[in-house]
Amino acid sequence: MKKILLLIVICLQVCVVNCTSAQPKANYYCPPCGDCDKIAYKAPGKCPHCGMTLVKQTAAEHDKNTKRYKVAFYLQDGVEVLDFAGPMEVFAYAGFDIFTVSATKDQIKSQGILKVTPDYSIDDAPHADILVFFGGNAGVAANNPKVISWVKKQTNIDYYFSVCTGAFILGKAGLLDNLTATTFHLSIEDLKRDVPKAKVLKNVRFVDNGKVITTAGISAGIDGALHLVEKVRGIEAAKQVAVYMEYDKWIPQQGLIIAKSK
Amino acid sequence: MKKILLLIVICLQVCVVNCTSAQPKANYYCPPCGDCDKIAYKAPGKCPHCGMTLVKQTAAEHDKNTKRYKVAFYLQDGVEVLDFAGPMEVFAYAGFDIFTVSATKDQIKSQGILKVTPDYSIDDAPHADILVFFGGNAGVAANNPKVISWVKKQTNIDYYFSVCTGAFILGKAGLLDNLTATTFHLSIEDLKRDVPKAKVLKNVRFVDNGKVITTAGISAGIDGALHLVEKVRGIEAAKQVAVYMEYDKWIPQQGLIIAKSK
Repeated sequence: MKKILLLIVICLQVCVVNCTSAQPKANYYCPPCGDCDKIAYKAPGKCPHCGMTLVKQTAAEHDKNTKRYKVAFYLQDGVEVLDFAGPMEVFAYAGFDIFTVSATKDQIKSQGILKVTPDYSIDDAPHADILVFFGGNAGVAANNPKVISWVKKQTNIDYYFSVCTGAFILGKAGLLDNLTATTFHLSIEDLKRDVPKAKVLKNVRFVDNGKVITTAGISAGIDGALHLVEKVRGIEAAKQVAVYMEYDKWIPQQGLIIAKSK
Repeated sequence: MKKILLLIVICLQVCVVNCTSAQPKANYYCPPCGDCDKIAYKAPGKCPHCGMTLVKQTAAEHDKNTKRYKVAFYLQDGVEVLDFAGPMEVFAYAGFDIFTVSATKDQIKSQGILKVTPDYSIDDAPHADILVFFGGNAGVAANNPKVISWVKKQTNIDYYFSVCTGAFILGKAGLLDNLTATTFHLSIEDLKRDVPKAKVLKNVRFVDNGKVITTAGISAGIDGALHLVEKVRGIEAAKQVAVYMEYDKWIPQQGLIIAKSK
């Protein structure tokens, strides 16, 4: 009788193990914030490293939520300094990998002041998951057929993102056709004229069409970038970036979301 | 009798002209904003170029209010990108002349991403009216005796300004002794330890001691820079910069003013 009981217990244990392993195993992870988001905890609670509330996820979900997006910052000569620096700060703290690209590898001058050497030219830039464009002399990029051709031939892009008059570059590449967009407040009418197939809105901090996000002028790039972080990492991760940057002025609802998914 | 009356009238006219010309002549000017702030109007009203309310000033007052401050941005390797880009954007639109300085002329990498070539090294940098320091690897500057020696030997400085942990560089040079200061929210205790003669405050966006202004972390540099523009150009000029940058989130009262004048 004892042997039969032991056999039943073993069978039950095997069944439990098999049933459990048939479902993806969930652990508890810190939202993306640096090294501590790689640790899997068995129980819910707060991350002992950064204090954030742990999130229940499968390993596959966790991998998706911590994807290190490759982000190409296209910088033309004369690019507005805060246009790109705001999103660079945000994306860096969200754990994205950023590189800079320009038409050539020649040094450019941001805002006529800051001497910047791009990492790549459009001839040798690696693949990016996110392509980002900025204002400040944006016409020099929008009116360069080689740049527009490079934009058009990029494939497997997760998100297109523009700040300020960077929208004119997306528009010239046809990426705003039949979408809703915004730009720098003094350039709203010009964007309507140059990209007649886009619905151009004023008085909105960013517009998210799912795959294509455009923001208003200069400082609005910070808000749009935080929105993209929220979109791919969740609101807690985005809030943590905002707190770190001491940008408590962020109001997520200041943007217009046309479509959430791509 | 007629001749006597005529003589009296002429005397009175001469007296009036002399009395008037003894006082500096006031005109109406647009607040600093570009080319239109150079035009003197005879009557009050709105600037026909930019719509701003004209301000009554003597020519001498006007010269002072439109001074093109020379601003040295000290950028160490690893400097936080938004720390310096926010004030660079603000000061550029306020009509200040900005140049970059580093320990040497070697290329630096801001935030480990952006390749920046400084305009000058500390060996050949020209005189600046305003010296500005930023966080992001600030220790590499604060602990470099050559950099601190350079900071100390600068003369005729109108304003010292720091963002984030740039305060540690000012502190090391003795410029925060017996003053009130702030820094990045995670470095408040460290600044208290490193600069015991300073009164270090948390939860304040900037602290203005008259000649020495320190700001909280990263994005707070934008607010501190707008405050400095308000200080030297007036609130209307600062508001105009904020509007242009679409930084309607600026709240001037978020800072602490210990002393207005130097």
